[in-house]
Amino acid sequence: MQKIKNIGVLTSGGDAPGMNAAIRAVVRAGIYYDMNVYGYIRGYEGLIVNDFMLMDRKSVANIIQRGGTILKTARCESFRTAEGRAIAYKNIKQNNIDALVVIGGDGTFTGAHIFEEEYNIPIIGLPGTIDNDLAGTDFTIGYDTAINTVVDAVDKIRDTAESHDRLFIVEVMGRDSGLIALRSGIGVGAEGILIPESSVGLDDLVKKLEGGRKNKFSKIIIVAEGDIEGGAFSVGNLLKEKFPAYDIRISILGHIQRGGKPSCMDRVLASRLGVAAIEGLVHGKSGVMVGQIHKDIAYTPFSQAIKHLDINQVSPAWLRLVNILSL
Amino acid sequence: MQKIKNIGVLTSGGDAPGMNAAIRAVVRAGIYYDMNVYGYIRGYEGLIVNDFMLMDRKSVANIIQRGGTILKTARCESFRTAEGRAIAYKNIKQNNIDALVVIGGDGTFTGAHIFEEEYNIPIIGLPGTIDNDLAGTDFTIGYDTAINTVVDAVDKIRDTAESHDRLFIVEVMGRDSGLIALRSGIGVGAEGILIPESSVGLDDLVKKLEGGRKNKFSKIIIVAEGDIEGGAFSVGNLLKEKFPAYDIRISILGHIQRGGKPSCMDRVLASRLGVAAIEGLVHGKSGVMVGQIHKDIAYTPFSQAIKHLDINQVSPAWLRLVNILSL
Amino acid sequence: MQKIKNIGVLTSGGDAPGMNAAIRAVVRAGIYYDMNVYGYIRGYEGLIVNDFMLMDRKSVANIIQRGGTILKTARCESFRTAEGRAIAYKNIKQNNIDALVVIGGDGTFTGAHIFEEEYNIPIIGLPGTIDNDLAGTDFTIGYDTAINTVVDAVDKIRDTAESHDRLFIVEVMGRDSGLIALRSGIGVGAEGILIPESSVGLDDLVKKLEGGRKNKFSKIIIVAEGDIEGGAFSVGNLLKEKFPAYDIRISILGHIQRGGKPSCMDRVLASRLGVAAIEGLVHGKSGVMVGQIHKDIAYTPFSQAIKHLDINQVSPAWLRLVNILSL
Amino acid sequence: MQKIKNIGVLTSGGDAPGMNAAIRAVVRAGIYYDMNVYGYIRGYEGLIVNDFMLMDRKSVANIIQRGGTILKTARCESFRTAEGRAIAYKNIKQNNIDALVVIGGDGTFTGAHIFEEEYNIPIIGLPGTIDNDLAGTDFTIGYDTAINTVVDAVDKIRDTAESHDRLFIVEVMGRDSGLIALRSGIGVGAEGILIPESSVGLDDLVKKLEGGRKNKFSKIIIVAEGDIEGGAFSVGNLLKEKFPAYDIRISILGHIQRGGKPSCMDRVLASRLGVAAIEGLVHGKSGVMVGQIHKDIAYTPFSQAIKHLDINQVSPAWLRLVNILSL
Repeated sequence: MQKIKNIGVLTSGGDAPGMNAAIRAVVRAGIYYDMNVYGYIRGYEGLIVNDFMLMDRKSVANIIQRGGTILKTARCESFRTAEGRAIAYKNIKQNNIDALVVIGGDGTFTGAHIFEEEYNIPIIGLPGTIDNDLAGTDFTIGYDTAINTVVDAVDKIRDTAESHDRLFIVEVMGRDSGLIALRSGIGVGAEGILIPESSVGLDDLVKKLEGGRKNKFSKIIIVAEGDIEGGAFSVGNLLKEKFPAYDIRISILGHIQRGGKPSCMDRVLASRLGVAAIEGLVHGKSGVMVGQIHKDIAYTPFSQAIKHLDINQVSPAWLRLVNILSL
Repeated sequence: MQKIKNIGVLTSGGDAPGMNAAIRAVVRAGIYYDMNVYGYIRGYEGLIVNDFMLMDRKSVANIIQRGGTILKTARCESFRTAEGRAIAYKNIKQNNIDALVVIGGDGTFTGAHIFEEEYNIPIIGLPGTIDNDLAGTDFTIGYDTAINTVVDAVDKIRDTAESHDRLFIVEVMGRDSGLIALRSGIGVGAEGILIPESSVGLDDLVKKLEGGRKNKFSKIIIVAEGDIEGGAFSVGNLLKEKFPAYDIRISILGHIQRGGKPSCMDRVLASRLGVAAIEGLVHGKSGVMVGQIHKDIAYTPFSQAIKHLDINQVSPAWLRLVNILSL
Repeated sequence: MQKIKNIGVLTSGGDAPGMNAAIRAVVRAGIYYDMNVYGYIRGYEGLIVNDFMLMDRKSVANIIQRGGTILKTARCESFRTAEGRAIAYKNIKQNNIDALVVIGGDGTFTGAHIFEEEYNIPIIGLPGTIDNDLAGTDFTIGYDTAINTVVDAVDKIRDTAESHDRLFIVEVMGRDSGLIALRSGIGVGAEGILIPESSVGLDDLVKKLEGGRKNKFSKIIIVAEGDIEGGAFSVGNLLKEKFPAYDIRISILGHIQRGGKPSCMDRVLASRLGVAAIEGLVHGKSGVMVGQIHKDIAYTPFSQAIKHLDINQVSPAWLRLVNILSL
Repeated sequence: MQKIKNIGVLTSGGDAPGMNAAIRAVVRAGIYYDMNVYGYIRGYEGLIVNDFMLMDRKSVANIIQRGGTILKTARCESFRTAEGRAIAYKNIKQNNIDALVVIGGDGTFTGAHIFEEEYNIPIIGLPGTIDNDLAGTDFTIGYDTAINTVVDAVDKIRDTAESHDRLFIVEVMGRDSGLIALRSGIGVGAEGILIPESSVGLDDLVKKLEGGRKNKFSKIIIVAEGDIEGGAFSVGNLLKEKFPAYDIRISILGHIQRGGKPSCMDRVLASRLGVAAIEGLVHGKSGVMVGQIHKDIAYTPFSQAIKHLDINQVSPAWLRLVNILSL
């Protein structure tokens, strides 16, 4: 096993709070293990256009508390092509980069997986995505902050819903996954939650609303954007038909869910995983995502990490919680 | 001047953070001046359906920090009819109510104005609306909280805009008034602000964006929902045509702007105006809104208070600030 | 197994954010399982002075987001006596209470353990304490909120520390446990952490500071109040002697760590455990604390739950993180 | 009047949230008016040790939302000596600096006043201090954020005070001024406020507590650190003697009051005053602090600005509010 001397770090895909804490940890752990750490700008695009900088300890000072990513991020089409990856490889060889740490979600790891197999370069991934939709880690970096942002926003909406006796349909992020909707929905005391993974649909919700307390009109329904009923506006139109007496409003929380100061949990997770990524490289690991399962560090091959969690088994238990607690 | 013994207090129209602080101040100041204070539920509707309760000191304990209104609020159609107001008057006479304190915006005061003239019952208004669109007070209760909510939300959006080099168009509340957009836009360092009152339109914005720093793609444009260009989606479509290279996203902040814990300024303003409303009644005032102009309490006839501020004179100076500071 | 019809719920010991979410879950799950739920006021004192009320669904509406506990809490001396407990038992028998749910920390469970053994009354405990110092659950209700509160506060202190190149010693809660200090210290990027469980003492810290970057004067040291060096003031005095060039300030965060809106994680945990407490009673469990270990519900006998976690094995790994990341 | 081409900007004294927004506005307005703007590091010390850098638009990008000051700040002893100021003058002449903008409080302006008179160099001051203790402006930059920080912290303390029926004495900043205590005290619904300017002392407070509601034990007393009774610990000891039945706790909020993201109001104020400072220089003003009085920009000679506000006339009216609202 050859000693790794120079590594590149990048953030890719949708940004997530805690990415900066992860970059800080990777840079400082790299320096701790006598590596030179180069930050590539705008994800895989930085590899292709050769946009990078040497990072010292100070370059990551005072960023642990900041949302976004100082290395910027992008979705890179050309890295999906063999030509693009060939250029990327030529560049990193010329720069004497021995290994890569990539921070992102399933798209990021799919690219890393192909690149690592094609060119046999050590790569370790960190789960940085608000969606929490990766296998091999209990939580992804950014998820805890995102659900707290949703909870803060919906607490505000609850204030006005209570004052006006309104029913609000609040759409949260999650194209393929209802994990943000599920947990934040329980956190806000939602009267209903609609998620892609669940067979609970609008019919059940309508039944539940019909059976609800007659003297309570203020309600919050959380809808994941990828729900099969079609998002908050569709749900709103259907409920308006069924319940003409309700004063129904729609709110799309949107991109506020991606930003903001990371929560303590996300900072700690990112710090720990960033160090574990470097220590994984030191110990010869490659082609894996580093995650945390219960209290332990776990390295999971990219091919397994990107298999979305099957939460069908989980969600009924959680949705039952909503039923018991809301009405 | 007959001594006022029993008063009713209500909140009406759109809710605003700080309404609870105002209710608390009205109730406690009323008790301080030996009055019985009755809280009417859901605004003018409470007068008509006779839904009210006696409020003691404890009933308003620990509410100063809460968003929304414990008295609930509504827009009441029947109070706009002579028949509705007749019922309301009959009810409050039967309940021996001597005077009313109404907390709300221009719709609330329009109703109060008519009711006071028809039935000669003492009424004092408190400016409770996030829009800050009333004459007779520098700030309305709720405005400061709302612009802080916008700033918090857009700071989060800025994180992700920076990370992805995106241009965000953020729509904030303000159907007839750009005051939320203007101040929060300066607060977030927006690259552009579009408001109903201003002749600055999309053409100017396009020119500005064209002349902007070439290496800076992340931008925030704040649009008041009542802007003549037609809201964030219209603006977004137009900009996408003009700037195909930009990665443009839309965010509608929506009802989070109405809720949340009131800011210190809103709590202090509400506390002070609530006491001043009661003291105004004690001193025989009626048909007026109590506001704060610079450091002083001011009583302004309803008919003048509801004349929307002409901010045409103000906005050019503020918009110049944006020009100097943003690009 | 006799059917449980009437239960009492109480909060005891130091309050923790999320206790209200737990009360809500206990009340609603109780009602869901056809029980009558009575809330006892001020913990075990409520049992002794017979201060309680029947709780319906509405009594716990809109409290999931509130800090503190609507049932109030106290440390109760007389419940530590056989006489006190005898009165408590007599009262709950007269009230036909079949079982108790107690929310609190190790003091609470010690009392519950004795009471359950003496009188053979079914009792289930919920871990409600910011200290996270109980066995049988990964996290206690309130811990996540408390560390986020610390992180928010220290982020503010970091702003002024950076501006003035100051070293701040920040004391956080934790008389016997450094768990708040440890995790929040990593979250704020602290340059040093002093905790009761660790053999890392002032000497190591001094060595570390001496070896630190010469051009970096702003530093944050987090001290658990129970550290053997004696709290922030003692540490401050010792560091002032060793480093006269440093501009050293002390901050005791104090009781802000107990209050505030619970985080999403604390609300979800409290909601889940509250339901599991009721379901535990339904299934005949008693004398146990309900906790969450990894993703599963776990019931742990009181006698084991109150054995403080031995974090000696854990802390070196975490403290190594601080060493790698801070200097 | 000679054209000003090169200016220096610095922050001095205690830092305040919004200083970065002010720096941004000075830099960008300077560039707008074709000036070169140099940032001096660590206040007047930067002038003496000649530590400065040229600032472009990008150097102040994305700082409007950050607490602290990117130019760092200090209290500089040598600038109080004629020798120190002679060196400072020599340095800025060599650097061809034509004018200075200084952001700080009364100490900063006292230095600026002497320096301007000695060397006839144009200087304009911006009021950057959380204390709000300057004449010539309604509010100083940082005050609104500081009182919101206090209110957030005390809301948390109120949660635990309510749960335990405790009386908390909370000490806030303000060595010579009770303005932070006064406004935040009203904002949190404090049961008592002790400030340096007021003749209301402990005796009145004791009387008030004695006459208070018997069934309400949870109370918040806000004490300014400069109160003649001697701070929170002294007040606590005296109250413990008088009210042995109360469970009394002390909290010193400390340096969290200096940091944090600036509020919208502070950002807007800083932005406006920063532009007005540059425009003042353009129009030949010097030796003045730029402030905002009601809605207008005002330039006040340093000698008048540093005369602390006499709030003796103001405070009784505000303290009366507390009396009416709290008990």
